[in-house]
Amino acid sequence: MVSASSNSDAAQRGDLAASPLLTDLYQFNMMQAYLDHGMTATAVFEFFVRKLPPGRGFMLAAGLEQVLQFLETLRFDRTAIDWLRATGRFHEKFLGYLADLRFDGDVHAMPEGRVFFPNEPILRIAAPLPIAQLVETRVLNLLHFQSLIATKAARMVLQAPGKLLVDFGLRRAHGAEAGLLAARAAYIAGFGGTATVSAGAMFGIPLFGTMAHSFVQTHDDEVAAFKAFSLSRPDNLVLLIDTYDTVAAAAKVVRLVPWLRERGIEVKGVRLDSGDLAALSRAVRRCLDEAGLKAVTIFASGGIDETRIADLLAAGAPIDGFGVGTALTTSEDAPAMDCAYKLQEYAGVARRKLSAGKVTWPGRKQVFRRRAGGRMEGDLLTLADEGGDGTPLIADVMRGGRRLASPETLAAMRDRCAGDLERLPPALRKLAAADAYPVAISPGLRALAASVDRAIAAMREREQGTGR
Amino acid sequence: MVSASSNSDAAQRGDLAASPLLTDLYQFNMMQAYLDHGMTATAVFEFFVRKLPPGRGFMLAAGLEQVLQFLETLRFDRTAIDWLRATGRFHEKFLGYLADLRFDGDVHAMPEGRVFFPNEPILRIAAPLPIAQLVETRVLNLLHFQSLIATKAARMVLQAPGKLLVDFGLRRAHGAEAGLLAARAAYIAGFGGTATVSAGAMFGIPLFGTMAHSFVQTHDDEVAAFKAFSLSRPDNLVLLIDTYDTVAAAAKVVRLVPWLRERGIEVKGVRLDSGDLAALSRAVRRCLDEAGLKAVTIFASGGIDETRIADLLAAGAPIDGFGVGTALTTSEDAPAMDCAYKLQEYAGVARRKLSAGKVTWPGRKQVFRRRAGGRMEGDLLTLADEGGDGTPLIADVMRGGRRLASPETLAAMRDRCAGDLERLPPALRKLAAADAYPVAISPGLRALAASVDRAIAAMREREQGTGR
Repeated sequence: MVSASSNSDAAQRGDLAASPLLTDLYQFNMMQAYLDHGMTATAVFEFFVRKLPPGRGFMLAAGLEQVLQFLETLRFDRTAIDWLRATGRFHEKFLGYLADLRFDGDVHAMPEGRVFFPNEPILRIAAPLPIAQLVETRVLNLLHFQSLIATKAARMVLQAPGKLLVDFGLRRAHGAEAGLLAARAAYIAGFGGTATVSAGAMFGIPLFGTMAHSFVQTHDDEVAAFKAFSLSRPDNLVLLIDTYDTVAAAAKVVRLVPWLRERGIEVKGVRLDSGDLAALSRAVRRCLDEAGLKAVTIFASGGIDETRIADLLAAGAPIDGFGVGTALTTSEDAPAMDCAYKLQEYAGVARRKLSAGKVTWPGRKQVFRRRAGGRMEGDLLTLADEGGDGTPLIADVMRGGRRLASPETLAAMRDRCAGDLERLPPALRKLAAADAYPVAISPGLRALAASVDRAIAAMREREQGTGR
Repeated sequence: MVSASSNSDAAQRGDLAASPLLTDLYQFNMMQAYLDHGMTATAVFEFFVRKLPPGRGFMLAAGLEQVLQFLETLRFDRTAIDWLRATGRFHEKFLGYLADLRFDGDVHAMPEGRVFFPNEPILRIAAPLPIAQLVETRVLNLLHFQSLIATKAARMVLQAPGKLLVDFGLRRAHGAEAGLLAARAAYIAGFGGTATVSAGAMFGIPLFGTMAHSFVQTHDDEVAAFKAFSLSRPDNLVLLIDTYDTVAAAAKVVRLVPWLRERGIEVKGVRLDSGDLAALSRAVRRCLDEAGLKAVTIFASGGIDETRIADLLAAGAPIDGFGVGTALTTSEDAPAMDCAYKLQEYAGVARRKLSAGKVTWPGRKQVFRRRAGGRMEGDLLTLADEGGDGTPLIADVMRGGRRLASPETLAAMRDRCAGDLERLPPALRKLAAADAYPVAISPGLRALAASVDRAIAAMREREQGTGR
């Protein structure tokens, strides 16, 4: 483990910042139209997940810090403006507007590491319409991915109480940023650390790393490889023992111990990366225990996900920790969530979309959570100013483009998450969540939705009457 | 569509370049051990996919250009060295080695846009062992993701002959780089373009964009929204018609046409984003046709993947193009491939890993492809210098860290891909690929594998004999 210089996200500022062109073309199309027609009043958008991915009983909020950094650093530099001009699609008035554009809106959000449920907004942005529209793509991109991975990681954490979980998944993550942000999201959810060095450098996440099969293969024999590695990396020494024959290699480790101790080196653990992990871990444990090496831990990797973890531990496999790669960083069984950043209000009037299968609750909203006996009992989705029983989960985080508090530490997010996972109803902690968590809709919200529906119906009648 | 300043990848240089710390910690552990023991001879690693993702009959190679950029710009700057020093894990000799490190190896590869199959290497790196090891993580990260997405995109292209396919998936891609590189991979595979503006700016990919539901919702009625948008964005005008009632909105578009024509504006298309797309597209087509608007196209989006495309077109849905989001940019049904970057040779000696279920073919390899009657007939996996019937697919692309040719254009990759998809055996073009493509193993490769196995067996006997 590497102790890093900073445990907060602040060190990362700017490095993940995206170009302002990292958005959909239609955002610019709409922005220019809004400007042409003077439509720059305040628009309110909220981010929420429509339904739980298969098997999931809850979701975990993550990615807010990257959203806030994106908003506060949003600028169109000359290169971006020149490129947009060269497309021939945009007029100078619009390009001038972009050159001066800053995010000066308000943001309300649930904090990272909070458990949340479908239809509950975890972010609200109130800003001039063109700006609130522009940021949609990247806001979705950031919140969706980290919440997806944090949710996946939490499923593994719940199956592995007391075990060390480490992110090994950069290589099959979808690009560089996915690898970095997956390491962050997994750490918030309760992982012990990551193998990704730059995630350690940027976020202060503890780093773990051992050796690869290629290290063993480049040596004339396995023992020579173990000796060479031990001499160069004597601290936290973990030897990979499955390159040729796992149980035979465990016996080699046992025979190597006196040679290592003469040199002041202790083997801390062994890693298995292939084969029947339950049977092999038992055989390796027996071999180590018989040699009195009870303190040497067994770490398993290779095709690990929450189901494998649960199965291995249910089978009594003596595994002390898991390296989780692809399943974690791609959220392999559910690599996307059905989420949206939807217009809820424009110029003080609540809005609602009626497209088939995609109905949304209008207006600015709050979520209240009731607890009893150390458990979550149910949530209430209300209008922002309506009030309700329980604890409000959505707070003011940015006003006029300025943060209201300095960035939260990852440690604080981890604590919040651990508490929320502890308070989950038992049925929702299972791999195949048995029940739906109760999220009630307040009378005020129902009334607003009905009035928006009446306004839409009136508009349709008006249009039919005039034959437009 | 935006015509961009450059059609090659060259404009993108540096922008996607990752920090040299974007790797696994164990790479640094192993590198220091290699240096300590003077193990800096040439190592040869190859990237290949072990097996096809479910339902797939082939894969498409993509991401080589980003790998070459990564290799030629690999540098440890002072910040990176200082951070590594501060971890306390590495000695000064090693840090000095990193400060001077440049990629000076050789690269052989299949070109982008080429169809390939399991066990066929699409990249070979020969470089001093510590360097060839260091780059593993990012090389895997880049080749895996783009090949994954190009493969997914090709499945859609095969189901939609003559249709326009556009990438709409940045918002649910896994981070910024995933969105950008997915747009590129899909374009290589035959998509017509992307909605992601920065993918247009970086790669010269054609851009497409219309309007969102929020644009309609911020107006007092749908017709007012259509008018405002048409006046501001009269070119390539596509109106989104599913915000409230799709068929009613199509009738509004028809009634709006005279008003638009008075202003010199033609409606180019309408977009449907929800509901029963087969039924709605037929109703909308009828409405448009009856008004003589046969040239107005119907574009569909919302939950589109290759199966939906096939089903809609099989049902005769009059849809002219598809916007594909999440399913494309996350490769939703198979968000990862079982791939590896494996040591094949060190210091002139072939190597092979025997871990259960993960056997690899040793040595430097070539792939020959036989064609007959305009179809691929079968591939032969050989040693690099063995020769074989057919066309060799792997070529020299970098020598001593220097490219042997300037970057290929995306247009050339698209042409190659279109040709390869055309030549695929019909059974492999199907959604659920019926047959396995024949990939034979050459006698030379089998002989080398057997000799490596004998050497490993001899090593084991030697170890057992000496009781090591």
